Amino acid sequence: MKDIIFQKIFKALKDFNMIKKGDSILIAFSGGPDSVMLLYVLKSLQKKFNLKLAAYHLNHMLRGEEAKRDEEFSRKLAEEWNIPFYSEKIDIKKYKTEKVGSLEEKAREIRYKRYHYWKERLKFRKVALGHTKTDSVETFIYNLIRGSGLKGLSGIPPVRDFYIRPLIYLEREEIQEFLKIKNIPYVIDSTNLEPEFTRNKIRLQLLPLLEEIRKGATQKIFQSSLILKEAEDFIQCEVKKLLKKATKEVFKGDWLLDTSLIRSYHLFIKKSLFHYLFGFNFEETSTVLNILEKGGRIRLRDFYISSSFGELYISKKERKLPDTVLQKPGIFEFDELNLKIILERGEKTTHRMLYRINISWDYLPLIVRSRREGDRVHGKKLKDYFIRKKIPEWRRALIPVFEHAGEIIWVPGIYLKRGIEGKLKLEVCKIHGEKFWVFDK
Amino acid sequence: MKDIIFQKIFKALKDFNMIKKGDSILIAFSGGPDSVMLLYVLKSLQKKFNLKLAAYHLNHMLRGEEAKRDEEFSRKLAEEWNIPFYSEKIDIKKYKTEKVGSLEEKAREIRYKRYHYWKERLKFRKVALGHTKTDSVETFIYNLIRGSGLKGLSGIPPVRDFYIRPLIYLEREEIQEFLKIKNIPYVIDSTNLEPEFTRNKIRLQLLPLLEEIRKGATQKIFQSSLILKEAEDFIQCEVKKLLKKATKEVFKGDWLLDTSLIRSYHLFIKKSLFHYLFGFNFEETSTVLNILEKGGRIRLRDFYISSSFGELYISKKERKLPDTVLQKPGIFEFDELNLKIILERGEKTTHRMLYRINISWDYLPLIVRSRREGDRVHGKKLKDYFIRKKIPEWRRALIPVFEHAGEIIWVPGIYLKRGIEGKLKLEVCKIHGEKFWVFDK
Repeated sequence: MKDIIFQKIFKALKDFNMIKKGDSILIAFSGGPDSVMLLYVLKSLQKKFNLKLAAYHLNHMLRGEEAKRDEEFSRKLAEEWNIPFYSEKIDIKKYKTEKVGSLEEKAREIRYKRYHYWKERLKFRKVALGHTKTDSVETFIYNLIRGSGLKGLSGIPPVRDFYIRPLIYLEREEIQEFLKIKNIPYVIDSTNLEPEFTRNKIRLQLLPLLEEIRKGATQKIFQSSLILKEAEDFIQCEVKKLLKKATKEVFKGDWLLDTSLIRSYHLFIKKSLFHYLFGFNFEETSTVLNILEKGGRIRLRDFYISSSFGELYISKKERKLPDTVLQKPGIFEFDELNLKIILERGEKTTHRMLYRINISWDYLPLIVRSRREGDRVHGKKLKDYFIRKKIPEWRRALIPVFEHAGEIIWVPGIYLKRGIEGKLKLEVCKIHGEKFWVFDK
Repeated sequence: MKDIIFQKIFKALKDFNMIKKGDSILIAFSGGPDSVMLLYVLKSLQKKFNLKLAAYHLNHMLRGEEAKRDEEFSRKLAEEWNIPFYSEKIDIKKYKTEKVGSLEEKAREIRYKRYHYWKERLKFRKVALGHTKTDSVETFIYNLIRGSGLKGLSGIPPVRDFYIRPLIYLEREEIQEFLKIKNIPYVIDSTNLEPEFTRNKIRLQLLPLLEEIRKGATQKIFQSSLILKEAEDFIQCEVKKLLKKATKEVFKGDWLLDTSLIRSYHLFIKKSLFHYLFGFNFEETSTVLNILEKGGRIRLRDFYISSSFGELYISKKERKLPDTVLQKPGIFEFDELNLKIILERGEKTTHRMLYRINISWDYLPLIVRSRREGDRVHGKKLKDYFIRKKIPEWRRALIPVFEHAGEIIWVPGIYLKRGIEGKLKLEVCKIHGEKFWVFDK
């Protein structure tokens, strides 16, 4: 019995490279059977791996006397086994978090925050958690029936960052049997805050039924979840590569994507990209991909999405240049758009058509603004000028339009009225050289 | 009711691009509710899509009178709806197939063979099958608990080759309800040959329990299976790209893999490669990857696996050159190894050290053979010569060793004894220019 259990633990340690010699490991210790097993296991390995161990108990203050009893039990057992013990009382109900959600989610968030805090404080390298194969399979099923894509079907990761789960190859039942045979005491976890109905049904009815239908089903599901975890990891890598190549966050929360590059990728990677960046689900990504292929603009949830001339632009804000009056020489900054407009008494410039012109004093006051529906120059629609120049739709609202006495006299890079030359220099340029600029292509 | 059902069907047709105008579709028609629904649906769409339809019924001859009744029922319904009807009686129990396995597997194989046959015979483009979302979710669960990697978790594909499944968005219950309301008759499918116990438990107990735990679970599982299908498809594409770049089938069933190229790929793709090529499971691929990284040789199932000097070689046969005596000039062919040895009265060649030498008549008879443990040349181990020349381990057995009077006088590319020149030309070359040769690198 001990042999099989320890074989499984050694296999997990090896397969996921969990422990190095000389490691320091903080043990999440509730006093429940899994965490007692974890303490026992790591204690047994302490000499072999030259481990520095400590146990940490969080009293969620949700079950009054029972919680106190659990804390006391945990303290005593740790002392008995010569493992330094740390505990905290945190009134979860009163604790403020950024998390909106159920008490379970809140409790989870706090737990992991405190593990992190204590790990740092003790200058430990790792945190060991008592999750079992059974927990992992339950999580798999739980996510499966809630619908959660590939990620949720990975079950519980055996290792994530500094968290390790040495019991991940053990089933809950074999742990309890082991503790019983060894006569090792534990409490019934008073910190079990998982949503009762769903979890319990999965635990008490669904998993047994699966095993009844096919012996070893749990193990098979666990194996699948490990395979899916690796698949998910691979896909994440591919998506991140594509992200680097094909996307740019141009303004805060606004993304610019290279449609022709993205188009060349596999459908699944495209979808994963949008899921990753914006959390779009299956249906939503299909909609976005349709826009990506065919061009056009839509509003999806609270996103503005626009695709034209090889660019897909996704933003949460409709960005545009506010109407601004230029009365006299000066510098006008539009920080959010990384756009600066300078009006000064200047030398004559030769860059006439591009972002810098000389105009006559007669053309003050000038109004600078975003283009509007119906704007015309030379009797033609301004829009047609943009299209002829292949300016993507989303950029058009950010290109300044200079207007004098109701007439558009300059649209940098697009249009310049003749016969307006004079002794004032008007320039459109960047505020920050290194940041994205609307004229960058 | 009709509206919702037809909305779902149109969505499936569109999402998976199932039907084109003017298509010709053979309908797999058992007479059971799903296939009656399928017939009804395609009949309803016949005008709109200008479809050519026919129904095909296979009588498996497993349930005697009942099977006859089903065939008759099917024929009548098809006739009533003006759809050409074809049927066959095939005694599945007696039918010979290459398939070893259960009666279900055999029946499945035959069914699909006959669909293919009739599609070709009628010169139709597609075959429509009556699988539902419920079938797909059942298959998902069935594969999940049997353990089948990513592929099995894709459920039933909505479209594969020329097979289409227009009912894939419908649940079994809504179909039966629809037929009841419309007063459309059907038989209870006598061809349902799926393994009773497992399938029935999943159908009658597991799926209802999942829905009880969370309403809509079936739909969520179905969505997951579609996502996993796309993921699987992407991974297949990646694996095939890697296959093309990094692998070569050198002899029949013997694979040569470029280890340094494979090493640069993601763990999951590496594993998928070996799963794809050899059907290795999770554990087995880990073992192979270990060899790939560290070099060495192992026997895994019935495969010989050997890794050295940048090459991984996997074979089912231990290939070696049979001992052969060269008594007089002639041509000696080793077809399996694409190796030819020519001994002839020849001109003097200048390619001395490479695959062609002139030797004296005194050195006949010559023995050509594979290297042996303990072979020595110049008082040193032949093995060390191979290692110095960086000849991968698996190639060493295929490089001919020429021996005269117990002494090795030539190993092409490796070693040549001095002072053996004469008027005979000895050459090692390919039989087929385009096939792999052991000296190719």
